[in-house]
Amino acid sequence: MLTYSFENRGGQSLYEYLYNCIKQDILSFRLTPDEKLPSKRALSKHLDISTITVEAAYGQLMAEGYIYSVPKSGFFVSHIASSEKSPAAYEEDSDTYANESGEEYFADFVKNSAANDTFPFSVWTKLMRETMSDEQKKLMVNSPSVGILELRKAVADYLYRFRGMKVSADRIIIGAGTEYLYSLIIQLLGRSKRYALEDPGYRKIYHIYRANEVDCVHVPLDENGVDVKKLEKTAADVLHISPSHHFPTGIVTPISRRYELLSWASKSPDRYIIEDDYDSEFRLLGKPIPPLQSIDVLEKVIYINTFSKSLTPTIRISYMVLPEALMKKYNETLSFYSCTVANFEQYTLASFIKKGYFEKHINRMRNLYRARRDELMQAIKSHPFYERVTITEENSGLHFLLSVDTDLSDEELIKRAKENGINVSCLSQYYFDKRNNKEHTLIINYSGADRERMKEAVERLFDAVNLMQNVK
Amino acid sequence: MLTYSFENRGGQSLYEYLYNCIKQDILSFRLTPDEKLPSKRALSKHLDISTITVEAAYGQLMAEGYIYSVPKSGFFVSHIASSEKSPAAYEEDSDTYANESGEEYFADFVKNSAANDTFPFSVWTKLMRETMSDEQKKLMVNSPSVGILELRKAVADYLYRFRGMKVSADRIIIGAGTEYLYSLIIQLLGRSKRYALEDPGYRKIYHIYRANEVDCVHVPLDENGVDVKKLEKTAADVLHISPSHHFPTGIVTPISRRYELLSWASKSPDRYIIEDDYDSEFRLLGKPIPPLQSIDVLEKVIYINTFSKSLTPTIRISYMVLPEALMKKYNETLSFYSCTVANFEQYTLASFIKKGYFEKHINRMRNLYRARRDELMQAIKSHPFYERVTITEENSGLHFLLSVDTDLSDEELIKRAKENGINVSCLSQYYFDKRNNKEHTLIINYSGADRERMKEAVERLFDAVNLMQNVK
Repeated sequence: MLTYSFENRGGQSLYEYLYNCIKQDILSFRLTPDEKLPSKRALSKHLDISTITVEAAYGQLMAEGYIYSVPKSGFFVSHIASSEKSPAAYEEDSDTYANESGEEYFADFVKNSAANDTFPFSVWTKLMRETMSDEQKKLMVNSPSVGILELRKAVADYLYRFRGMKVSADRIIIGAGTEYLYSLIIQLLGRSKRYALEDPGYRKIYHIYRANEVDCVHVPLDENGVDVKKLEKTAADVLHISPSHHFPTGIVTPISRRYELLSWASKSPDRYIIEDDYDSEFRLLGKPIPPLQSIDVLEKVIYINTFSKSLTPTIRISYMVLPEALMKKYNETLSFYSCTVANFEQYTLASFIKKGYFEKHINRMRNLYRARRDELMQAIKSHPFYERVTITEENSGLHFLLSVDTDLSDEELIKRAKENGINVSCLSQYYFDKRNNKEHTLIINYSGADRERMKEAVERLFDAVNLMQNVK
Repeated sequence: MLTYSFENRGGQSLYEYLYNCIKQDILSFRLTPDEKLPSKRALSKHLDISTITVEAAYGQLMAEGYIYSVPKSGFFVSHIASSEKSPAAYEEDSDTYANESGEEYFADFVKNSAANDTFPFSVWTKLMRETMSDEQKKLMVNSPSVGILELRKAVADYLYRFRGMKVSADRIIIGAGTEYLYSLIIQLLGRSKRYALEDPGYRKIYHIYRANEVDCVHVPLDENGVDVKKLEKTAADVLHISPSHHFPTGIVTPISRRYELLSWASKSPDRYIIEDDYDSEFRLLGKPIPPLQSIDVLEKVIYINTFSKSLTPTIRISYMVLPEALMKKYNETLSFYSCTVANFEQYTLASFIKKGYFEKHINRMRNLYRARRDELMQAIKSHPFYERVTITEENSGLHFLLSVDTDLSDEELIKRAKENGINVSCLSQYYFDKRNNKEHTLIINYSGADRERMKEAVERLFDAVNLMQNVK
């Protein structure tokens, strides 16, 4: 209902002030033509003023044509041709954020649109409806800080079946996205720790640590992942890695290096490894790789993963698995936090996993991605300039690397691709220490690629890359 | 599907190892009797081993009676009388968190069960279903970091109509709970700031600041809210308050003190006020109080509020309104964060507000709470020992204060009430500086009170408080 404060009305009487407020709202279209005004009684009760005051204000507005009355029905806003528009009225037309990613490309090899066009809507809606009708009582019981037990059990079961991890549900914490979970980890491990990140790597992870004002260093990778000698030199306490599938290089850290990393962690009680397993579901070929967590007998690994990647980023549900000591610390020091995911979604997801839909969805997605990749590879291989490019890491996750033989700078390369309608990124963009840069290596994320456009997309890309130039 | 890592199989052959893994899973009931095993082909493909290996392992398991085959259908787990149970199998029966708040009282005057039993399920389900069917495309577009525009507009409109705040949608940030938003505020304002909290006040807010390792002090209140002279002495930069309705005292900060607080904030560019307006919707009587934000011309106030309180705590949606400079800073430095609320819920809530359901819900709740309060007051007033208690702050929010004339300590008081089946808290529990303690003042939160039990609840409470003792 209309709400005005009468505290700052200056010398105006209550009725004058109310009249002015409503008039202002009509002129600024806060109140729209033909909108019904509250009854005099209701408004006077709401604003705690007398009905006589409201009557006087309405009378004045009527007299001046700002409102009209319909007998036995009430008061309505007139159609006013106004030249005054409040800033608020203009806002409706624009939004600073709406076009954030609004650029349209012929083909986008950057955006991780993953599951957005294949989200299992009908099943999800069905389960949501079932949850809403069957579980009303449970839905209204506050979730434990760590998340609903049903969901934690479903996740534990999933981790066992798909990742070979033996994890108890009471070691799992559910949260609204991995970004939020990182902040919990920082609170758990303490802000005085030094965190080491992979170089190259996701810049966002760095931003999160920096926004949380923790000390953050980068460790270069060799062909097997994090270089342990260099890691030692950084004097870091906590290592944040994606050993199952590193972005953007695609490196899979082999078992021997994994043990070296665990051995590094074992050397001080302060040391921990955060294993970010964000897209392990989508590895397309080869044996499933056991997570670091599953071979960690010294309880040094914090495992973290998300459904936002495997289902859709528009659902914010992630989870982490904590070592016993950290779980104890969480329960003692941080369990005052409310769980950040709504009950509705926790129960719906639990049911989605338990009933086997998640497994089906993952399989379907893998087949889809495999088909997209194969088609794209085919398009590249059949291109006349195929010999001038090198493809690596094509089985891991949703992208591969395409090294091209060109004289152009990476910046120029990206710019030219854009001009040809192709959005693409380069490995060099993910390096912090530019001395280690690898030039001329494109990252081709095919998760959102349109199969019908593949052939032309490759032609446009190869044209932009300017391979021709070098050919005589 | 069954997933095992073959990396650590020691001297065992692939088939032996697979046989042992499956056997172990059957014995530990990870695989349950009559459960269907994957086909040989599917499993061999999944594990990237030959079908012959799988066949050999299945053959061995069959020979030993762990599994059985049904012609043309496949392999199934036998019924095994096992003495070995894995720890995981036991887990199912217990949960550390399930009984967190499982104590049952005859009447609970502590729990803020607010809307849990009155959540408008059918409308919410209807809107959710509409959202899922009408907005599929929009639902799959990632939310801006600050939240979906529709929801921010709906909130802006709501704030204007109900709180008299003129706020543009691009100053609003949506997040999964106020606790999460506090952490964003800390990141925005910086960790080197000193934060001042109200004493008495919610301990949880203090815990959050401490978990984020920021410097935190308490300022005592006088009868009008935060004592500005004492605030000055703390050398705090940021003040976190609830001027519209302070918990637990119920103090409403008058306009003069509000200007004093704004004046305090104006004295340094580093100073800000966080206005936590968490249950202003439920004020039962009197003029709506204009938020500090609405009289803040110097852009010093961060306004924060939540739907978790007014709808149900099991939905995690809160929002804050930032001053221009801080919004700019957010966009520049923190907008890499993903919004923590799922699109589904953002669109559903936007529609719930826009279609007027939220307004209806609030009105309904207010009437309900008013009726509960009146009934409880009646029960107290008609009790023979009514003259030995004093009631204050009965119009603000969902609780009032009940001062009792007794010789018992507060601790003893609470204990005795519990023995009588009544859960109640005392004002003294919310003081940090115990020198300012007010003894013998009970906080009566009636939001979840059962109207039929009110009379007896009052009798039990008064009996516990031991008023009789002092009567001749």
